[in-house]
Amino acid sequence: MTISLADYQERNNQQLNQWLDSIPHQQQTLTKAMRYGLLLGGKRVRPYLVYITGELFGLKSSDLDTPASAIECIHAYSLIHDDLPAMDDDELRRGKPTCHIEFDEAIAILTGDALQTLAFTILTEGPLSTVSEPHRITLIKELAKASGSLGMCMGQSLDLEAENRLVSLEELEEIHRNKTGALIKCAIRMGALCAGEKGIEALPHLDRYANAIGLAFQVQDDILDIISDTETLGKPQGSDQNLNKSTYPALLGLEGAVEKAQSLLQESLQALQAIPYNTQSLEEFARYAVDRSH
Amino acid sequence: MTISLADYQERNNQQLNQWLDSIPHQQQTLTKAMRYGLLLGGKRVRPYLVYITGELFGLKSSDLDTPASAIECIHAYSLIHDDLPAMDDDELRRGKPTCHIEFDEAIAILTGDALQTLAFTILTEGPLSTVSEPHRITLIKELAKASGSLGMCMGQSLDLEAENRLVSLEELEEIHRNKTGALIKCAIRMGALCAGEKGIEALPHLDRYANAIGLAFQVQDDILDIISDTETLGKPQGSDQNLNKSTYPALLGLEGAVEKAQSLLQESLQALQAIPYNTQSLEEFARYAVDRSH
Repeated sequence: MTISLADYQERNNQQLNQWLDSIPHQQQTLTKAMRYGLLLGGKRVRPYLVYITGELFGLKSSDLDTPASAIECIHAYSLIHDDLPAMDDDELRRGKPTCHIEFDEAIAILTGDALQTLAFTILTEGPLSTVSEPHRITLIKELAKASGSLGMCMGQSLDLEAENRLVSLEELEEIHRNKTGALIKCAIRMGALCAGEKGIEALPHLDRYANAIGLAFQVQDDILDIISDTETLGKPQGSDQNLNKSTYPALLGLEGAVEKAQSLLQESLQALQAIPYNTQSLEEFARYAVDRSH
Repeated sequence: MTISLADYQERNNQQLNQWLDSIPHQQQTLTKAMRYGLLLGGKRVRPYLVYITGELFGLKSSDLDTPASAIECIHAYSLIHDDLPAMDDDELRRGKPTCHIEFDEAIAILTGDALQTLAFTILTEGPLSTVSEPHRITLIKELAKASGSLGMCMGQSLDLEAENRLVSLEELEEIHRNKTGALIKCAIRMGALCAGEKGIEALPHLDRYANAIGLAFQVQDDILDIISDTETLGKPQGSDQNLNKSTYPALLGLEGAVEKAQSLLQESLQALQAIPYNTQSLEEFARYAVDRSH
């Protein structure tokens, strides 16, 4: 990509570090665990999408730091809770001990809780130079909608209920539209909303792009879970299979899943064609989502 | 009290039920568990404080439903996570099975997560007829500050670290100022903030009242944990002792703790004298906080 994911990762890490520095109890375990959970690594896909979407309408990176940081806090909290023994029971994340292994379960629960709160603190207190106060509320509304019982949390609940049984393709899409798709869509919508009218006009096309790419990302994750080794993936290979989770390769076969990812890529690229700005970064991201090897 | 806690409980339950009704997946376990966790009973102390504080400045109950509902969601989520096996490992809450017993641990984690999000959804979307948009953001900021790493979650982390060792009185106050005090103070501040200028002017006195009464409530909780039986309390008697948690009676003796509660009551009543409105409800609440038997 022209401006790499790594550049934005670095920017996002600096921003998140500053927010963590503002917590008075720096020596407390909770603060340390929040830093560990937030800065463990990770692709920073959601912040990246906030940045490249806002920038396509002419915004600067500094106009987008606030929603980018907020959404990564939601993502980080969800991973910490997802890794808990009562959930996916994962001991490795990005090749490092998960939060409840590095600290303990109680702290991991609290850390997730506090990171969710931090997301909303950031959206209420962080600089938003291009956004009026009512639009700040719109951003908070978008993030809450994507995170809770209308989005991510509901997706995780649907996912839990789907374990150990074969779900239909429709059910699987419903799970992922909520579990991972809602937050990816939210990242793109928040980037656009920071741009005001121009961004709001493009929302229907961006939504279509986001729906396709959010799903494509998950399909590719499922594919990688089968074909990658643990070292590349940073988590035990085949861990979804071990939990008897329904996946796209399980429902469509590996080849069918690869075709599905490609067809979603095409749909996302079509959606971008309706947007009268330079959407190259979003296009490259879509290709990355289905071509990546980890 | 002139208007009873029970009247506001009923009002708050109706409001929370309406918010739960707005979740599309009504048949999903997550939605059922959210309803269970929110409507299991409970004193509704925090909503009550929102109402009586706002009303002392002439607001109507309907002007205060939104912050009252939001803060109860935060409280309910914290109880659900607090009861988890990795935290306090409680099987009973208000005499009924805790969320992870009635459902399971994974659902209890997600339910807490989703109830936290719902709190912020309510504050962004709920009616707030007396509040301008910038002040709506102030309310969200207050709630986030009281809930996360600057308030409740930090208090819980401090509390975890204090287990199995004797803490000083200062440390114990620091724990409770964050763990339970922050949210009680937030309830009172949100009630006042809904009243605009009049409420803002009274904030220093209300803060002093809230600090005293928040601590008094905890001291009385500690006392009740020793002197009440399980049936009255709705949780096993002496459960804090079993966890080797420091309590006021442990540090001050039972008589010393009773004196402490009385001295905090006097401090809270003094703070109210500086407020040029009818503060009878807050006064009665303060007396209730230290005289209650459950």
